[in-house]
Amino acid sequence: MATALAFAVTSPVAPLAPLELQRRELRPHDVLIEISFCGVCHSDLHQARNEWGHSSYPMVPGHEIVGEVRQLGSAVTRFALGDRVGVGCMVDSCAECGPCRAGQEQFCERGAAFTYNGTEMDRRTPTYGGYSTHIVVQEHFVLRVPAALELARAAPLLCAGITTYSPLVRWGTGPGTRVAVVGLGGLGHVAVKLARALGAEVSVLSTSPNKREDAARLGAQAFELTATPEAFRRLRGRFDVVLDTVSAVHDYDPYLRLLRPGGTMAVVGIPPEPVRLRAGSLIGGNRVLAGSSIGGLAETQRMLEFCAAHGVLADIELIPASRLNEAYERLAKNDVKYRFVVDLASLHARRGAAPEPASAQK
Amino acid sequence: MATALAFAVTSPVAPLAPLELQRRELRPHDVLIEISFCGVCHSDLHQARNEWGHSSYPMVPGHEIVGEVRQLGSAVTRFALGDRVGVGCMVDSCAECGPCRAGQEQFCERGAAFTYNGTEMDRRTPTYGGYSTHIVVQEHFVLRVPAALELARAAPLLCAGITTYSPLVRWGTGPGTRVAVVGLGGLGHVAVKLARALGAEVSVLSTSPNKREDAARLGAQAFELTATPEAFRRLRGRFDVVLDTVSAVHDYDPYLRLLRPGGTMAVVGIPPEPVRLRAGSLIGGNRVLAGSSIGGLAETQRMLEFCAAHGVLADIELIPASRLNEAYERLAKNDVKYRFVVDLASLHARRGAAPEPASAQK
Repeated sequence: MATALAFAVTSPVAPLAPLELQRRELRPHDVLIEISFCGVCHSDLHQARNEWGHSSYPMVPGHEIVGEVRQLGSAVTRFALGDRVGVGCMVDSCAECGPCRAGQEQFCERGAAFTYNGTEMDRRTPTYGGYSTHIVVQEHFVLRVPAALELARAAPLLCAGITTYSPLVRWGTGPGTRVAVVGLGGLGHVAVKLARALGAEVSVLSTSPNKREDAARLGAQAFELTATPEAFRRLRGRFDVVLDTVSAVHDYDPYLRLLRPGGTMAVVGIPPEPVRLRAGSLIGGNRVLAGSSIGGLAETQRMLEFCAAHGVLADIELIPASRLNEAYERLAKNDVKYRFVVDLASLHARRGAAPEPASAQK
Repeated sequence: MATALAFAVTSPVAPLAPLELQRRELRPHDVLIEISFCGVCHSDLHQARNEWGHSSYPMVPGHEIVGEVRQLGSAVTRFALGDRVGVGCMVDSCAECGPCRAGQEQFCERGAAFTYNGTEMDRRTPTYGGYSTHIVVQEHFVLRVPAALELARAAPLLCAGITTYSPLVRWGTGPGTRVAVVGLGGLGHVAVKLARALGAEVSVLSTSPNKREDAARLGAQAFELTATPEAFRRLRGRFDVVLDTVSAVHDYDPYLRLLRPGGTMAVVGIPPEPVRLRAGSLIGGNRVLAGSSIGGLAETQRMLEFCAAHGVLADIELIPASRLNEAYERLAKNDVKYRFVVDLASLHARRGAAPEPASAQK
């Protein structure tokens, strides 16, 4: 067993605090990863505070993990010591059902093992995520991080990257297509870069005029302020793909009408309330409303290679683990451009000393 | 000009009554069709009674038209006198915009000319539909009705057929796929036959237990009574395609959850109120909600050839024009298996005599 030092929450209202935990002995196909950096996804905050209602504690959030291989199980052949690797939202699945065999492990019929706030496939052993010095993961769920990718800025690709890459590719983003990215946050800013790298003409749609400059800097050819109905009228029928990254409650109808006939609006944000939708917004124009949930392992690896080939990386604010609580406060106000990434170096140093258990930090 | 005898409504509350009207002189690309039969689509009733709020009067409903070519414009080469032909929901479009050139005339950027309750492309001349002895239509909008298809039973294919064929084909219905048809009415009963002919395993989902026998007779391999949540739990993740033909208000979420990962629910019914939809129903499973509106001319022709090759025809109740008002009353109660089709023979006979104008019938 490897002792890891992590940052954990012990209740929906507790701050993140150090917790020592044991990572399991390596099984034949396991890899022990020394974590260098971990992105802070908005879903970390939702789950830490039990805003989705299915949290269990203690919880070590974090599913945008990058680091280096430090130990190998006896049967591992795909990795060598020192390899730069990543782990995203999943750490295991049944490997036998239809979705698993189709490379869509996120839809494993037995339920994939998610990286934190879940359980291993035994359905008993809790999983602990990437705000941690080390993690042990089955090799199928370990990604290679190409040498061209700066490690800290690659971390958010493991969730924000694949979440936006998968629907963009599925729905035909490429040269000659027009893509609208709705919302310029952690997901949206990566989506803009990916859609440009895929060859599309990219517009950012936002209700905040102060996003205009950043949209251009990130590579968008157009910025459309959608604070008024007039903007929606003007842009009607313009886009092949609308990628909606907004998780606040909003109507889908005005955005659907921005699609050309046969176009697709892909949604990756989950508003807390049901959305009202007019069937006519879909039927007029054979329009498509499509959900998308992360991506399978093979596609995630393709995404990383694509990002390496096109220089796509997240814009991040690097913080030590000790500033995680402050980062959560700012994240709750969307005050980040565009992803906090935790540098685990301070935790590695502290692990050298005797860490205090989380219970002493409350 | 050709004098036609039609059945028309002159207000939202008027019954259908005879009306004499002039069909235009043939332009070079026009075809004069002597109408044999015309299907009675539920949208005829909605528009006759101004339930969609954009009706103009007098209105001659009917867009499921079959008949024979009786006169040809000077430039027509695709048809000969006596050809068995059909006309669906459109009679003209701009022919120049992207959708028109892509064979999606229903999404013409200038607005297609719909067969009735619309205008010609001059935006002034009203269009009158198929409850009529004759119609003049631009040849591009005239379909060939293959000899193998019984004419009266082919009429509903021009709307109900293409409306269900197009989404079934677009979303991959074929051997090895499981298709659920929701609602067994005018659209649903044709959808069952088409999905079977395309090679799928077909289930009918209905809240009416008395539809079970008909579902089997129409070719469905399974009937699922969806009156209880238990049925939805049991069928979760089962279908590749759900074709929702219901236009009453209903939740989409339970039906979306019947889809396997990546599956598509195609909607062709327009409920009068917005539908509530949880984004999570789409995101969990990368599911797709797709609208579909009739189909272009080339696809409609392919659908007719497909129906001829596979013996697909509508189940109809043939009525004389004089029983149209009674048919409307029954249609309002969904009391028809599964499509009324007007036999225009009586109107042709009456046209031989001196028809009374509609105003005398009120």
